[in-house]
Amino acid sequence: MFRAINQMRRFSVDLRRSGKTIAFVPTMGFLHQGHLSLMEKGKSLADRLVVSLFVNPTQFGPNEDLAAYPMDEARDLELTQKAGVDAVFIPDVQHIYPSGYQTVVSLKFLSGHLCGLSRPGHFDGVATVVTKLLGIVRPHLAVFGEKDFQQLAIIRQMVKDLEMDIDIVGAPIVREADGLAMSSRNMYLTGDQRQQATCLFQALTASRQLVKNGESSVEAITRTAASTISAVPETTIDYITICDPQTLEDVSFVSGPVLMAMAVKVGKPRLIDNMMLTP
Amino acid sequence: MFRAINQMRRFSVDLRRSGKTIAFVPTMGFLHQGHLSLMEKGKSLADRLVVSLFVNPTQFGPNEDLAAYPMDEARDLELTQKAGVDAVFIPDVQHIYPSGYQTVVSLKFLSGHLCGLSRPGHFDGVATVVTKLLGIVRPHLAVFGEKDFQQLAIIRQMVKDLEMDIDIVGAPIVREADGLAMSSRNMYLTGDQRQQATCLFQALTASRQLVKNGESSVEAITRTAASTISAVPETTIDYITICDPQTLEDVSFVSGPVLMAMAVKVGKPRLIDNMMLTP
Repeated sequence: MFRAINQMRRFSVDLRRSGKTIAFVPTMGFLHQGHLSLMEKGKSLADRLVVSLFVNPTQFGPNEDLAAYPMDEARDLELTQKAGVDAVFIPDVQHIYPSGYQTVVSLKFLSGHLCGLSRPGHFDGVATVVTKLLGIVRPHLAVFGEKDFQQLAIIRQMVKDLEMDIDIVGAPIVREADGLAMSSRNMYLTGDQRQQATCLFQALTASRQLVKNGESSVEAITRTAASTISAVPETTIDYITICDPQTLEDVSFVSGPVLMAMAVKVGKPRLIDNMMLTP
Repeated sequence: MFRAINQMRRFSVDLRRSGKTIAFVPTMGFLHQGHLSLMEKGKSLADRLVVSLFVNPTQFGPNEDLAAYPMDEARDLELTQKAGVDAVFIPDVQHIYPSGYQTVVSLKFLSGHLCGLSRPGHFDGVATVVTKLLGIVRPHLAVFGEKDFQQLAIIRQMVKDLEMDIDIVGAPIVREADGLAMSSRNMYLTGDQRQQATCLFQALTASRQLVKNGESSVEAITRTAASTISAVPETTIDYITICDPQTLEDVSFVSGPVLMAMAVKVGKPRLIDNMMLTP
């Protein structure tokens, strides 16, 4: 386990010199089955696996849950050890953003949709910290979950745009038995809310079925999904969107594979989920 | 000479694998003695030297001289060969900015001074293209001239902020016999303007002498410099600034080493120059 940037860098430089390939899974910690599936994928694709635990302050808005974001380093370290991770990188925030820090990486178009609209600056924070982490760890490939679909699209585009020479690998959403997408934020759901939270998955699968049955009107599909969710107590819809999975731009009609994505508050916690809909 | 990004990358990857160090001098071409001094410095500090020739459109404003920027690839190639450059990288603009390109690297504070004020977006363009070029060439060190003092400060900060693990080396301004700082834009000066253009250097050296003689009022020093320059026909002052050489923030009194920087149009061409003033 490394806390110092230079130690982490040295580990990677030595591995590269010895001809080993490195997979990297950046996380904000409080690991769950979803993270473990990313690690498993990383291990299967490279000689060595590096995981980072870093709750990045710059991707939280002023009214968001940075201070309350769950952390359990000891448990995370145990889980990474069991998962066969070769190095865990836990940098200090003041080493990542020292005094005088001022560089921002932003994406002009992909950030202007979905969560980018309700979380201004969020994806600048994500793109910037991922650029830094990739610069320190210098992996051959990095694995990101499709649950954060927009994040994955942004990192993919950024790595291509900035010529980082790293493969970005997506991994499917991991769900609880009742369909709820795994998330560190699920722990904040009360017992009732935990039941109610399955409405996201239910709305997504119902929409998928509608499209399979021939429905092509995005307005009709999202209206149905919105009423499913609104009928559940304690829910507040942030957005329900059907969009082009490459550009994330809204579509009006479903004429090929599209992405349905949503953000819904269930009580306080804001949950996101998404699914491909294919006619 | 490489025009393809993948070929350039392969060249560097192979060099790194064989344990060789790489120095890099990014240029916009139309090479002069200033560039050659950067190359000489690069050669002295690494096993191999890569030079790029790329007139980057994103660092020119809509009313600037992109279309008129001088180019002479054949002459540049001859000069690099004589200078013992190991590889010249001449990418196509549509490979650097392909369709869908959208990532921007910006620096919040250092860009907000000097040329950043009169050339909005210029340093975003510089920071972004340098990030890309460094990603492709993957040098161990890169050499930038102190004539573009703000650019050097920005690249230094960016490389540190984004953990690029590359040494940024500054090299002193190279001047003509009469003091004019070398620049590709000097070729646009008419015979008269070429004489008049020495006023930047004269104002800088006079200011340096004032400070040596004990003058500490920035207002007094810049007023004197401005009248020296305004007295010369065809000159238009964009700015004359005395600032902290680290932060580029204005200072009011000279109590230690400070940077004096200026941008002056002589006829059409906009020339920049700078000098450290030390009490």
